[in-house]
Amino acid sequence: MTTPGALDRFYSVIPAGGIGSRLWPLSRADAPKFLHDLTGSGHTLLRDTWDRLTPISGEQRIMVVTGRAHRAAVEAQLPALADANVVLESEPRDSTAAIGLAAAILERREPGVIVGSFAADHVIRNQRLFAAAVKEAVAAADEGYITTIGIKPTEPAIGFGYIQCGGALTVSGAPSALAAASFVEKPDLATAERYLDSGSYLWNAGMFIARADRLLEEIGRSKPELLAGLLELAAAWDDPATRGPAVDRIWPNLEKIAIDYSVAEPAAAGGRLAVIPGYFDWDDVGDFASLSKLNSGGRTTDLAILGADARVLADASSGIVVSQTKRVISLIGVKDIVIVDTPDALLVTTTDNAQRVKSVVDALKVSGSTDVL
Amino acid sequence: MTTPGALDRFYSVIPAGGIGSRLWPLSRADAPKFLHDLTGSGHTLLRDTWDRLTPISGEQRIMVVTGRAHRAAVEAQLPALADANVVLESEPRDSTAAIGLAAAILERREPGVIVGSFAADHVIRNQRLFAAAVKEAVAAADEGYITTIGIKPTEPAIGFGYIQCGGALTVSGAPSALAAASFVEKPDLATAERYLDSGSYLWNAGMFIARADRLLEEIGRSKPELLAGLLELAAAWDDPATRGPAVDRIWPNLEKIAIDYSVAEPAAAGGRLAVIPGYFDWDDVGDFASLSKLNSGGRTTDLAILGADARVLADASSGIVVSQTKRVISLIGVKDIVIVDTPDALLVTTTDNAQRVKSVVDALKVSGSTDVL
Repeated sequence: MTTPGALDRFYSVIPAGGIGSRLWPLSRADAPKFLHDLTGSGHTLLRDTWDRLTPISGEQRIMVVTGRAHRAAVEAQLPALADANVVLESEPRDSTAAIGLAAAILERREPGVIVGSFAADHVIRNQRLFAAAVKEAVAAADEGYITTIGIKPTEPAIGFGYIQCGGALTVSGAPSALAAASFVEKPDLATAERYLDSGSYLWNAGMFIARADRLLEEIGRSKPELLAGLLELAAAWDDPATRGPAVDRIWPNLEKIAIDYSVAEPAAAGGRLAVIPGYFDWDDVGDFASLSKLNSGGRTTDLAILGADARVLADASSGIVVSQTKRVISLIGVKDIVIVDTPDALLVTTTDNAQRVKSVVDALKVSGSTDVL
Repeated sequence: MTTPGALDRFYSVIPAGGIGSRLWPLSRADAPKFLHDLTGSGHTLLRDTWDRLTPISGEQRIMVVTGRAHRAAVEAQLPALADANVVLESEPRDSTAAIGLAAAILERREPGVIVGSFAADHVIRNQRLFAAAVKEAVAAADEGYITTIGIKPTEPAIGFGYIQCGGALTVSGAPSALAAASFVEKPDLATAERYLDSGSYLWNAGMFIARADRLLEEIGRSKPELLAGLLELAAAWDDPATRGPAVDRIWPNLEKIAIDYSVAEPAAAGGRLAVIPGYFDWDDVGDFASLSKLNSGGRTTDLAILGADARVLADASSGIVVSQTKRVISLIGVKDIVIVDTPDALLVTTTDNAQRVKSVVDALKVSGSTDVL
């Protein structure tokens, strides 16, 4: 049952790592997706994430895990972020290491802490419904469940992974909690339609809420060496004399594995994973098709325009223009187009081809054009 | 009959005036179409035109009519162009004024001169066949005909005007000369197909060859006031003391009318117009569809790339990229695309919409974005 004050023991963790290669040339190694305003809100996605979490956990209880290169940009975006809550990665080691280290550090500082991990670069539009789902998730986490918030699908999306729901759980404070039967990878369209019709599949939004001790226990079940490294690092973390050497020695050798594989799937298989259905608008803004839809109110006949200084003149055109220059951009008769105009690189494709943008990044690497990556 | 030495009395005139609005943003007020290399030859179209004419008339017998703003660029392209053969327009007054003034000046300097006017911004690929057609046209001109060279159509083009041919003429030195029955405007596709099938229509390439006195006589028939102005200007031209005042007084008041309407159509209607069929490759490169075809060997499945510093990475794409920057341009899955990338303006359209580019220029004028025109 839920201990009174579970939310008081809640800590938000924001892993701010991925570049977002399918959003190249907007997203780059030195300007990753979470540092962009992709909704025209006037704020970066990271800042929007922070603003969504502060009403739930408070400014003092949000930890950000990011790359050393992004420290200044992150701190500029989040001036209220406490120094002790910045975890810098010397290199990317995937989400188990990032979230696991945060959990291990927090558990040492505050035994019994409940951590919730929320991507830095997703878009969520209904704060009230989001907060309600997190509150239920915290309640389920306090009961010992590894808990996720799965998004109620609104269409047969093929760009997301899905969570297959099982029966209802009885958890005080989490009336909508269900058992998670399994996680499934991005489906083809026919499968996605079947998932949608069944009513028993939710989108995997990569949100994981758990007691830190339970999260570490799950990592230890599947990846004991990784857990040992994380615990050793956490033990050295809060002493300036020991942190640096420990990071140098341990971090580069940690196994790179997504938390979906190390924690979520095994926990689901073992009946230890709860899912709270989320009814808020959510998008991972994974590619330009998604960005286009997000910025045109879902109307594919519209042309979405992103960029404070955009000078776009469009005739009989639809899709999206992202402008990071002050150039005049003129479109005539191009449908479902994607145009990303940056000072040193230009992308022209269509929303249908949005998933293939990552291959350009790969091709540019191969061809040595790393100056624009 | 042909006077021996008619070619010795031949003078080429190159009106270098039009901006080429359908090639915006490549062509601009300060960088008109004739100052671009549109074929990857390494030379501007103006220079290619000059190089095509010098074997026929000689470097000393080519006159260029251009805007004052283009003087330096024209002289840089054509270092052998004689000062006396540069006619500068204070403002554009269309082709009757431009060609008529050249004819009037040359007729005063050298009575009996034969002038041939050839656009500065067309592409012709077979010098030998071009020279042979000009030679026949000069012979017909010497007989008193207003003479044009019409291009044998290779496809049912809808972007060109046509010349309807009549019966054969008997002209010494011009065995292929035909009477021109009429000029017709750009047709629709069905009509263009009918023209092509009939075998009796040629493309109007805007080449006019005539004795200067005959050309002026035709202008006088249809536009006597315009002729009077031209003759007055020509009389003042070669005296530095009188040219400037005459230009200031007369030029801005000359009627703006294309030579097709003032000379060619009336001459055709009156049986005074001869046409020499031209069998050489010709293109007016009127829009980006034409430019695309020209630079991809006619294969519409190819992607043509223009620009010395172009860095283009294309996957499953066709059409044309014109690059005037050093930016990486990446295309994925865009067919028949037109991308023109310049430092201050970007155009994205398709070859099907190429004719609509001019409307962008009009819209930019209306919106006050004249900085990129």
